[in-house]
This record gives sequence, structure tokens and C-alpha cells, in this order.
Amino acid sequence: MSNEMDFYFDFSSPYGYLASERIDALGAKYGRKVNWHPILLGAVFKQTGMAPLTEVPIKGDYAKMDFSRTARMLKIPFAMPTVFPIGSVAPARVMLWIASRNPEAAKAYARVAYRAFFVDGFNIGEPATAAALAAGLGHDRTAAQAAIDDPQYKAALKMEVEQAIGRGVFGSPFFIVDNEPFWGCDRLAMLEEWLKTGGW
Amino acid sequence: MSNEMDFYFDFSSPYGYLASERIDALGAKYGRKVNWHPILLGAVFKQTGMAPLTEVPIKGDYAKMDFSRTARMLKIPFAMPTVFPIGSVAPARVMLWIASRNPEAAKAYARVAYRAFFVDGFNIGEPATAAALAAGLGHDRTAAQAAIDDPQYKAALKMEVEQAIGRGVFGSPFFIVDNEPFWGCDRLAMLEEWLKTGGW
Repeated sequence: MSNEMDFYFDFSSPYGYLASERIDALGAKYGRKVNWHPILLGAVFKQTGMAPLTEVPIKGDYAKMDFSRTARMLKIPFAMPTVFPIGSVAPARVMLWIASRNPEAAKAYARVAYRAFFVDGFNIGEPATAAALAAGLGHDRTAAQAAIDDPQYKAALKMEVEQAIGRGVFGSPFFIVDNEPFWGCDRLAMLEEWLKTGGW
Repeated sequence: MSNEMDFYFDFSSPYGYLASERIDALGAKYGRKVNWHPILLGAVFKQTGMAPLTEVPIKGDYAKMDFSRTARMLKIPFAMPTVFPIGSVAPARVMLWIASRNPEAAKAYARVAYRAFFVDGFNIGEPATAAALAAGLGHDRTAAQAAIDDPQYKAALKMEVEQAIGRGVFGSPFFIVDNEPFWGCDRLAMLEEWLKTGGW
């Protein structure tokens, strides 16, 4: 049994953001290193025919209410961005650029980018914004922005998406531990039970 | 604040069945009477454009695995029926026929019908089966089966579905407490937190 687990998320996913604020603490509690994988839900949805959550009639309205309600319950700061959803290619590629040298620094970037979007309302889908957030963490701003159009990080993101689809990932957040899949921020309790007991 | 809460479910819904095995105990714990409402997801899905869960590629496979996993976690007997999904008009109308005289007896019928389907694999969508289950609880079998085609109970079920749609119900199980909606068996913990605290 590996002592790692995988966390898949789209930077435009509110429930992905909420999970990102809890998953490392959960992993640490049970001795699991968490590998963070940025993906693109647009590509994933092509596999399932699913639509973006907030665009589904009725269910979308419930979801928008529930993002805030869940955040309040978990005591995580949250403000629904006015520009939503966004394309998340830019922060995903910047993250993979940072990850190519330092995976832990990439996680720090992901947290900062998620908060910039879901707390402060910045459109992190804009390349300049995605790069500025990297600069705020001490990375080179010009190199960060260049990475967004670099074939190497385009390919890296494509590979993340393809590997996620290959493992059955169909939403965000999505967790895989010992090949057991868990979908949704509301499954963190079940995931914890699984980590605690080793499964049932 | 009402001391009641509403529970909406489709007899063909595995997560609805799992919730049905827990919701009355949860209500009792917080002094809430639970009103059970059979609905038809087919009609509800027309409002949202959603597809039956198990028919969605990839997500459907996950769901089939997760029905059993969730049941094992909750220690509720469960066996995926070989005939699935089914039309649930027959048990829904039999339930409403019983409810017209005795709401508590209607709940008992719903529990028996759900278990017949999700434990013993009977096709409860068949009128004869739906009526036989009522007979097993002491109701008149012929009258139960006649209720399925009775305009009164057709109208009663149509009204349940329309009222559910009017309240924003888009899935099964769905709970409404003090106008606060909760969707999904995996939200029972959040629903309990809401009942305990009065909301946040």
C-alpha cells in the first residue's frame, strides 16, 4: 500500500477550493502525502457528457447556495467570484511549471491562486494574474507567464488530464487512495473513514 | 419554525433507499416529524436536463460502486437489483393510497417496498408486486392494485411531483427543513448539523 494519495481539482471549481483547504491536513493525520493534480473539467466533461454544475437549471442555483453554506460550515473564507466559471489553463500550467522544480511550492501556489479567486475575486484565468500570483511567492513573473504558452507545460497539463480520465476522474474535487475513488468535497468524511479503517 | 421536515425520494433511487433507512431516526433525535414524499425522477429530470445517474458514462460506474460502498459504511443491507432502473409509478401510487388513510402506515409500506427492491431484488415497479407488498402489511391487495390506475392517486402523485419541482427538488433523496434544501444521502451529516445548530 502506497503512503500517498491523489487529489484532482480544477482551479475554477468551488468545491475543489474548499477541499484544497482541508486535504493536506487530512493526509497528514493519516500519514499520507497528498499529490495535487490540476485538471481541466471541460476536457473531463467531454467524456461523460456532463455540464458545468452552475449551468444546470435548478441544480445550479442549489449549488451556488451550497458553495457558501458548505464554506461557512467548514469555516473557510469564500466569496462567489463575479466572473465565473473561468478557463483554468493559465494557473494550471503555472502550477505545473513550479511543480517541475518543487512540488511543495506548487501546492503553495495552488492555495494562493484558489484564494485569490474564491476569496478576493481575482480572475486567475488571466495569464497576467496567474503569473503575478507566482511572482508574489518569489517566482520569476516573466518566466511564469511564458510557461503558460510553453509546449512543455501544455503537454504536462494535457498528460495530467489524460491520466485523470484514465483513472476514472469525472469531477472536482476527486480523490484516489489505494485505487479507491472518492468524488466531491462532501465525501471528505467518507475519505477520512477509509483512511482511518483501511477500507470496508 | 415548523417541527416537521420533508423527505423526497424516488422508489428507484439507491441513495433514496439508503436515506430512508436513516431519516426517521435523525428526525426523531431532533424532534422533527418527517413527511415522506414519493416523487418521479423522470419528471424532475425534465426540468434540469439531467440524466439518470447510472446512465452517465464513467460517473455511472462510480455510482454503482458507491451505492454498495455507502451501504456497507452505513451498515445497511444492499444488493444492486438486476433490473434497474425501474419505473416507480406503481409503488408511489400504492404508497399515496395508503397515506390517504394512514401516513405512518404509508412510511412502513415505503420501507418494505424499498427493501424488497434493494435487498431482495423484486421489481417493485410491477403493479402486482407493488400490491402484493401492501397485502403483506395487511392492506387489501385488490384495492392496492386498483389504486395504481385510480385517477385520484394518479392526481395525488402528479401533485407530489409538481410540488417537489416547485420547491426546487432536483434529485433523490432530497430533504427540506425550514425551507433549507439538502440534496443527497451524503448530506445527512450536514443535515444533522443543521438540525442540531439551527443553521449557520
